[in-house]
Amino acid sequence: MKHVRRHVQRLAPYVPGEQPRERGLIKLNTNENPFPPSPKVLKAVREAADGRLRLYPNPTAQELRKQLARLHGCGVENVIVGNGSDELLALATRAFVEPGGRIQYFTPSYSLYPVLADIQDAARFEVPLNEDFSLTKLGRASLTFVTTPNAPSGRGYATSELEKLCRSQKEVVVLDEAYVDFAEEHALELALRFSNVIVSRTFSKAYSLCFQRVGYFVGPAKLIGALDRIRDSYNVNGLGQVAALTTLRDLPYYRKNFRLIKKIRGMVTAKLGVLGFEVLPSAANFLLVKPPRFAARTWQKKLRERKVLVRWFAEERVRGYLRVTIGSEREMGAFLRAVRGVLR
Amino acid sequence: MKHVRRHVQRLAPYVPGEQPRERGLIKLNTNENPFPPSPKVLKAVREAADGRLRLYPNPTAQELRKQLARLHGCGVENVIVGNGSDELLALATRAFVEPGGRIQYFTPSYSLYPVLADIQDAARFEVPLNEDFSLTKLGRASLTFVTTPNAPSGRGYATSELEKLCRSQKEVVVLDEAYVDFAEEHALELALRFSNVIVSRTFSKAYSLCFQRVGYFVGPAKLIGALDRIRDSYNVNGLGQVAALTTLRDLPYYRKNFRLIKKIRGMVTAKLGVLGFEVLPSAANFLLVKPPRFAARTWQKKLRERKVLVRWFAEERVRGYLRVTIGSEREMGAFLRAVRGVLR
Repeated sequence: MKHVRRHVQRLAPYVPGEQPRERGLIKLNTNENPFPPSPKVLKAVREAADGRLRLYPNPTAQELRKQLARLHGCGVENVIVGNGSDELLALATRAFVEPGGRIQYFTPSYSLYPVLADIQDAARFEVPLNEDFSLTKLGRASLTFVTTPNAPSGRGYATSELEKLCRSQKEVVVLDEAYVDFAEEHALELALRFSNVIVSRTFSKAYSLCFQRVGYFVGPAKLIGALDRIRDSYNVNGLGQVAALTTLRDLPYYRKNFRLIKKIRGMVTAKLGVLGFEVLPSAANFLLVKPPRFAARTWQKKLRERKVLVRWFAEERVRGYLRVTIGSEREMGAFLRAVRGVLR
Repeated sequence: MKHVRRHVQRLAPYVPGEQPRERGLIKLNTNENPFPPSPKVLKAVREAADGRLRLYPNPTAQELRKQLARLHGCGVENVIVGNGSDELLALATRAFVEPGGRIQYFTPSYSLYPVLADIQDAARFEVPLNEDFSLTKLGRASLTFVTTPNAPSGRGYATSELEKLCRSQKEVVVLDEAYVDFAEEHALELALRFSNVIVSRTFSKAYSLCFQRVGYFVGPAKLIGALDRIRDSYNVNGLGQVAALTTLRDLPYYRKNFRLIKKIRGMVTAKLGVLGFEVLPSAANFLLVKPPRFAARTWQKKLRERKVLVRWFAEERVRGYLRVTIGSEREMGAFLRAVRGVLR
């Protein structure tokens, strides 16, 4: 007896960025926010960690969905909350793509999409972005994933371009705005205007809650309802709901951090340019940079020796680059010192 | 364009037990533990709720899996942790059952199984338990779910019976031991001896962590590895990992609670018997009881008016019964007063 489905036997698992246990490392490899959640959020989580942990959380994240709907000017039925946006991206493949159907996405973009396509036993249709990582013409598919701003390049896209893209698709388009808080514009309106468009957001990166696993989709009630019917019934842990809700009550704290991260991003861009790096313009909390002198992979290792973690992808289009998360001023100072050390 | 897959359009969502927002209710409807997590667990969760929330959790719940492997005398590769055991039950359908394949389970048992079968577009094969809720002969299926002890009846099963059942199946069997800490024996050894058997456990009920969403499977590395390849990469939230790990360091606290709950279960069984209820023997933290005088559904409403929540299922086999979670002595005192009030 085989037990395991044939296509599952062949799967390669998604490889997440390293989460080192070693202390004292400067961690610029997984696009986490360098700043902690707001003090109000930490307080709320600590205060909720009492005997109530024995009770099931709200199964529909009702209050959180209500507040998200208010924030985005839509109905509660237009919002679904997930165990991180990764869960929702996976749900989208299962709700919208028949096995043997087709999932398309740009390359390079979020390296999870091909993994999700394989898990769903769907065909992957990979559309290379233009040389400068600008959008190009898509094909047809049951589901289209667009990372906007793009990762790993950091390139941002105008809502008008995305609108054209959405209009060109007859089936479902997910605009994955994981990094949009660091960009100049967002495309949430498209999820409220088109019957086939969903916008994905997360509390992980911009809102410093990776540990807690809270993401959400905004979109047409019909699509959101389909996802809702196939999700796990208590998919969002209770302390995650508490943290996200409190986050929404303290947005100015985070907006100040976004401004600071963008400022640091500008400073680092300038300094790396002087040191001979080619730095792509970024609308995200990371930079894709082509380092001078050594191969990118060698740079990654040399920086690791100097206790600085950055991300390198083996994928052909970006193997000459490093992806560097924007950390705090102190962290980026340490990063730049390490870079100068390697160059010396 | 249809957007949503045909079988998803037809799905009815799982209906979880009511999570009331009203205060002052005696909540005996969702089998939560009446006692809080151990003080050490609460302290560990509170202390972990700091700036580290900005970081991703360990993607493989490595340390937790290591400690669980130690507890059960197996390898780390025999353990997978999920966002509650519900996530793992769903993963099992996706890893082991082709669409159009067959999932079997006893009726009555956990009401999530048919929902999972429908989501996976698999055929449901429902095998009625004997009148006294003892096991009966199964058919053939790609995946078999067995709730042991059974819910909602509370009936426990001997490992020798379960072994016979597992031996009769060629394909995968999941022994869902959500309530096993309140039973006289468990069947974990079967997961380590058979190549087609998995045991499901959860921190939710016995370990008072419903809010945190942590469950796990123990089983053959080949099956566990298949589930691992299709799970979300950061499926277990960080504070849940902290809570579960600390729980394993304080097991005597919980074992004392199990003994107390079993003692209360015995007392309530006796008292309900005197009041004219038929009470089924239970190896779990709840009782299935047939109330006198009024229909079970009427009893549920009358108890609700008296601020006591119990669970009633519309399913034919059990519609004459109420399922009553074993609460604290104080809660069960209030429950018995409410019962006497209804009878008066």
